[in-house]
Amino acid sequence: MTTVGKVIKCKAAVAWEANKPLVIEEIEVDVPHANEIRMKIIATGLCHTDLYHLFEGKHKDGFPVVLGHEGAGIVESVGPGVTEFQPGDKVIPLFVSQCGECRFCQSPKTNQCLEGWSSGGHETMSSLETRFTCRGQKVLQFTGTSTFSQYTVVNQIAVAKIDPSAPLDTVCLLGCGVCTGFGAAVNTAKVEPGSTCAVFGLGAVGLAAVMGCHSAGAKRIIAVDLNPDKFEKAKVFGATDFVNPNDHSEPISQVLSKMTNGGVDFSLECVGNVGVMRNALESCVQGWGVSVVVGWTDLHDVATRPIQLIGGRTWKGSYFGGEAHIRFNSSITMEQQS
Amino acid sequence: MTTVGKVIKCKAAVAWEANKPLVIEEIEVDVPHANEIRMKIIATGLCHTDLYHLFEGKHKDGFPVVLGHEGAGIVESVGPGVTEFQPGDKVIPLFVSQCGECRFCQSPKTNQCLEGWSSGGHETMSSLETRFTCRGQKVLQFTGTSTFSQYTVVNQIAVAKIDPSAPLDTVCLLGCGVCTGFGAAVNTAKVEPGSTCAVFGLGAVGLAAVMGCHSAGAKRIIAVDLNPDKFEKAKVFGATDFVNPNDHSEPISQVLSKMTNGGVDFSLECVGNVGVMRNALESCVQGWGVSVVVGWTDLHDVATRPIQLIGGRTWKGSYFGGEAHIRFNSSITMEQQS
Repeated sequence: MTTVGKVIKCKAAVAWEANKPLVIEEIEVDVPHANEIRMKIIATGLCHTDLYHLFEGKHKDGFPVVLGHEGAGIVESVGPGVTEFQPGDKVIPLFVSQCGECRFCQSPKTNQCLEGWSSGGHETMSSLETRFTCRGQKVLQFTGTSTFSQYTVVNQIAVAKIDPSAPLDTVCLLGCGVCTGFGAAVNTAKVEPGSTCAVFGLGAVGLAAVMGCHSAGAKRIIAVDLNPDKFEKAKVFGATDFVNPNDHSEPISQVLSKMTNGGVDFSLECVGNVGVMRNALESCVQGWGVSVVVGWTDLHDVATRPIQLIGGRTWKGSYFGGEAHIRFNSSITMEQQS
Repeated sequence: MTTVGKVIKCKAAVAWEANKPLVIEEIEVDVPHANEIRMKIIATGLCHTDLYHLFEGKHKDGFPVVLGHEGAGIVESVGPGVTEFQPGDKVIPLFVSQCGECRFCQSPKTNQCLEGWSSGGHETMSSLETRFTCRGQKVLQFTGTSTFSQYTVVNQIAVAKIDPSAPLDTVCLLGCGVCTGFGAAVNTAKVEPGSTCAVFGLGAVGLAAVMGCHSAGAKRIIAVDLNPDKFEKAKVFGATDFVNPNDHSEPISQVLSKMTNGGVDFSLECVGNVGVMRNALESCVQGWGVSVVVGWTDLHDVATRPIQLIGGRTWKGSYFGGEAHIRFNSSITMEQQS
């Protein structure tokens, strides 16, 4: 019996309020409206940003919500006006949309989009438009995606069609971590061949950043983490040196400075901690060091001494891989544009 | 009677201690040692960084000192090993040296030099090597220059020979303010044709930044200062809009955001105030805005919310015009290298 045109009842992990466990509930997923796609989620990752929203962010209009933004699935049905997707397509929902028409989409300098949830000033990470209800109550969709549900509805400008042979339980990581880390190194930091890099935090984002540095030709990639169990995996992705801050009594920026004759050329913060962000910047060499904030947090200020910047360091941030060089095109398979 | 080979007695404005007026004293200026040049200072500017050292910096090893780093003069004599300068040459002393051999000098990415006073980690802004004495006491040379003296001694890697017809009372401003502001816009921010810029602070550095933005083809240059008397001069250098923060009750970043549909493409902080640095960054458009810290201060942290960076803004600093595109060549007249 087809589900097309009908409300779908399915399981989802609902976050009813901050600091409380998710609850597996039966929710109702509405039919896709104009320009929307309803998809069955086959696989999803768990990202620190989901946890951030649940335990730290606590935005006033952020609950109840279905979290999850790193998934992959199969199109179940499409709403009016959708011509480039059809039921059965393998897809990845995107927390960064691409309307293709706004000044952000038309600029080669950014991958952001005025139509996306993220253009609203970040007061909330939830889309106020939602197709979910549970126990008679509207349930928000986190970053417009909500992959912690068996079904979800996403705007067609926030979906990438992928190769039909792609294994969904692996490629779901392209929905956030891999693109975020790899792109931060390649697009935002613009890591150069022969350079020395440091990657702080070796989760999925950090490991992808190591991979990006390696792919860009860095000759030395220093992997930094409090958990030494992660070093072996980082080595597989190209890390050459491994530093556990707990093994040192002095600030990690001084440790890296001594290891590299004054600091690294590029550093990437893949944790989401303002102290680590500062350390990452201050680990860069004066004159030309570039540090990129990749991890997400927005509760506290991030700070440094002005001389760190005046001395020639650059502080940037990266969002889902930054710039527009890696672009999801909704009509073809994902490809890297140069 | 020639002064060559003899200690020169002359007047200088000596800062004996922090927060006290400078005192006009007779000082002794030693003969130039190897690779050094002794020059008669004809004209000097007064820069906020001089005042910073006197009233705010208060470094423990920073007094007594002769301040001043924005001057122009005439070579009086040269020490052993100096071949490219001779008595009578018109010169500008430089607070950033160029040894030409260190990795900084050999990089196109920075105008810094490992041989300069500034490479020592900025614990002091005074050169501990000095050729000055006064009342039997060693007097430090601020940034290795000390232009508040009738004579000074400078290393040959920190001197630019200039055109013999150059008017010294004007070109002394090339010793700091003009290069610092102009270079920050052109070399560090890399202002683009057709862009919208904001310049915070309309002293010599800020006016030169306005000139740099104009030269780079900015279509809109918003000049920001608490003193509206400065707007007329800024207009002469190319400013198109004028904002006095005292005329607005909301944060200046919001005022500029409304004026520019979301923020400026480039902003330059030419004050040396961490609050203004933050405002300048947050006045930039998300996605691609670039903010450059040009004003000097290092007493307090500069801070922002991480989302400002993650959202696509870049925070840089500029030092004496940044990068190595404007290079002083000691053997020819000053020229811009591309």
